[in-house]
Amino acid sequence: MQGEDSLIDWLRARQLKQQPPSLIGDDGAILPTAEPWVVTMDSQREGSHFFPGTPPAAVAHRLLAVNLSDLAAMGALPAFAFLALSAPADFAFQTFFTALDEGCQAHGAILAGGDLSHAETCQTVLTLLGRKPASQRWLRRADARPGDRLWVGGTLGQAATGLALLQAGARLEGNGLSLSSSLDDFPSQLIEPALAAVRRHQLPTPQLQLGQWLGQQTDGAAIDISDGLAKDLHRLCKESQVGAEVDASVLPIATGQRALGKYLERDAEHMVLAGGEDYVLLFSLSPDLEPPAHFGCHAIGKIVDAPTITLRRGDHSKALEPLGWDHLSQPSDASGPRAASVAK
Amino acid sequence: MQGEDSLIDWLRARQLKQQPPSLIGDDGAILPTAEPWVVTMDSQREGSHFFPGTPPAAVAHRLLAVNLSDLAAMGALPAFAFLALSAPADFAFQTFFTALDEGCQAHGAILAGGDLSHAETCQTVLTLLGRKPASQRWLRRADARPGDRLWVGGTLGQAATGLALLQAGARLEGNGLSLSSSLDDFPSQLIEPALAAVRRHQLPTPQLQLGQWLGQQTDGAAIDISDGLAKDLHRLCKESQVGAEVDASVLPIATGQRALGKYLERDAEHMVLAGGEDYVLLFSLSPDLEPPAHFGCHAIGKIVDAPTITLRRGDHSKALEPLGWDHLSQPSDASGPRAASVAK
Repeated sequence: MQGEDSLIDWLRARQLKQQPPSLIGDDGAILPTAEPWVVTMDSQREGSHFFPGTPPAAVAHRLLAVNLSDLAAMGALPAFAFLALSAPADFAFQTFFTALDEGCQAHGAILAGGDLSHAETCQTVLTLLGRKPASQRWLRRADARPGDRLWVGGTLGQAATGLALLQAGARLEGNGLSLSSSLDDFPSQLIEPALAAVRRHQLPTPQLQLGQWLGQQTDGAAIDISDGLAKDLHRLCKESQVGAEVDASVLPIATGQRALGKYLERDAEHMVLAGGEDYVLLFSLSPDLEPPAHFGCHAIGKIVDAPTITLRRGDHSKALEPLGWDHLSQPSDASGPRAASVAK
Repeated sequence: MQGEDSLIDWLRARQLKQQPPSLIGDDGAILPTAEPWVVTMDSQREGSHFFPGTPPAAVAHRLLAVNLSDLAAMGALPAFAFLALSAPADFAFQTFFTALDEGCQAHGAILAGGDLSHAETCQTVLTLLGRKPASQRWLRRADARPGDRLWVGGTLGQAATGLALLQAGARLEGNGLSLSSSLDDFPSQLIEPALAAVRRHQLPTPQLQLGQWLGQQTDGAAIDISDGLAKDLHRLCKESQVGAEVDASVLPIATGQRALGKYLERDAEHMVLAGGEDYVLLFSLSPDLEPPAHFGCHAIGKIVDAPTITLRRGDHSKALEPLGWDHLSQPSDASGPRAASVAK
């Protein structure tokens, strides 16, 4: 049994024989209850998801954001949060709690309980319960139809660029960026895009309002891009039993990211397709619909009937492999999160 | 800020200024929703809560049991479970999932989602959502009244004895016990109580039915004994703003545990008061009520008006300190869970 997706497939297959059948398969679990509840659970672990030395408030922000992004992808709004925190005795617990509690409040959620234990490194898990406004539908991965246009909620690859900079020793410091000696030839015109990239990685912005708008439409599928556009597109297509065609010429890249990629000797398009952690929504929409401009969405292709996922470049198409993170096959690395794979 | 309880006090005080006020303070969080929901979250971490080499199915059993015990203490029944699992690539994921999924089914719960990541040791967190039958009340820590009798749902100190044996190298093997060389003078008449003690530690039995019965009574408080009778009694009394008097002569000890304690050079009464992890309910009940005999409960004292918690031995009383585990001040120890404290 290799990899996260095949393990989850196995568990679902096992559960589908049971009554009620498996609730696994979307960004959150929709509970079969009278009230419309959805539950998400996501971890942030030192060394795997964030670097040692990341400020506790930033860890709290990111932990909440990645869970909120899952709720956004379900069309839900946050209601109750539960935290499992393991940390060393000298961890700044109050700073962490204050940041998490304030973040919950800002999104209308209540930090309602959890579990504390001692560990040598900081390990965090958040469970988030979300509600769906009664007039809306759930957003599911399974609702893409051939002919739909395929959209993303913002630029891609920026978080992966930020991670590469963090791996090279860059750090947020106040409102600016501190660069390590390994970056001492860093071009000054790239400082601003570099700061934006590191911020994007450390402080992602979940698209809850876009999720709400999508939930008000009559159809279309959604997933959040946490593991990579290519990988998450494969997941969406698999649930919807469709294929997709992505147009390489319109993939949205943030200003200055190509130049940053060149400096870092990383292929910008690979970062877009495989980078992950941008926490924007990937969704399908009937061709007569378009999300309001202020959401900053980009049409990147279309859903097709054929069970193939392809990347089109001019007149040429090639298969788009499910590039991206696999949370089980990534070795954790003391030098930083996901280090082994970003370079792949 | 020292210790788990004072940290949680600080967070509650912070939240009590908010609207709605804090939901923290019981074994689970009662959600202010139309349906009666309660949520618990508990971790089992290799090296902190269980020994390296513990079979994955046993970890799954214990993880579920400690969460079920929290639901029992709330008078709730399990409904939905969410798992966060971090483990090495060669971990027996399917064995673990199968055991957890079967355990959930056996208790009427659905394993509905979660999160997977890679780690060098096995780290597990379970979130459990429970429902309360509509005709029952919630069990709370705050409902003890002076004059109530104080009860426990079973014998105490047995899990701590089991832990001491595990620390000395004993292991469950099939239906029996394998002893390490450090136990080669182990008296044969203690084998049976030793097996029972190790089983009690590794495979605790949550008291869901007792919790249901208590929820059907009109008053009385409850908490589950996870961190030690003395510590958990302090928590119950604090929430109820009462004191308690425990009668040392009636503290229930399992057959053979005194002899085992003597062999292990541990004070049996200290194990009863401070050992923890027995996962029986500690509850108060109006003096005209008695739980049905088949639950195996023991009256151990009474709730008093004075804000003191005392241990009475014949005509003498002394203050009972909140002995037991503090999850933040326990250093984890490669030689086994909670090792530093059991010997204290």
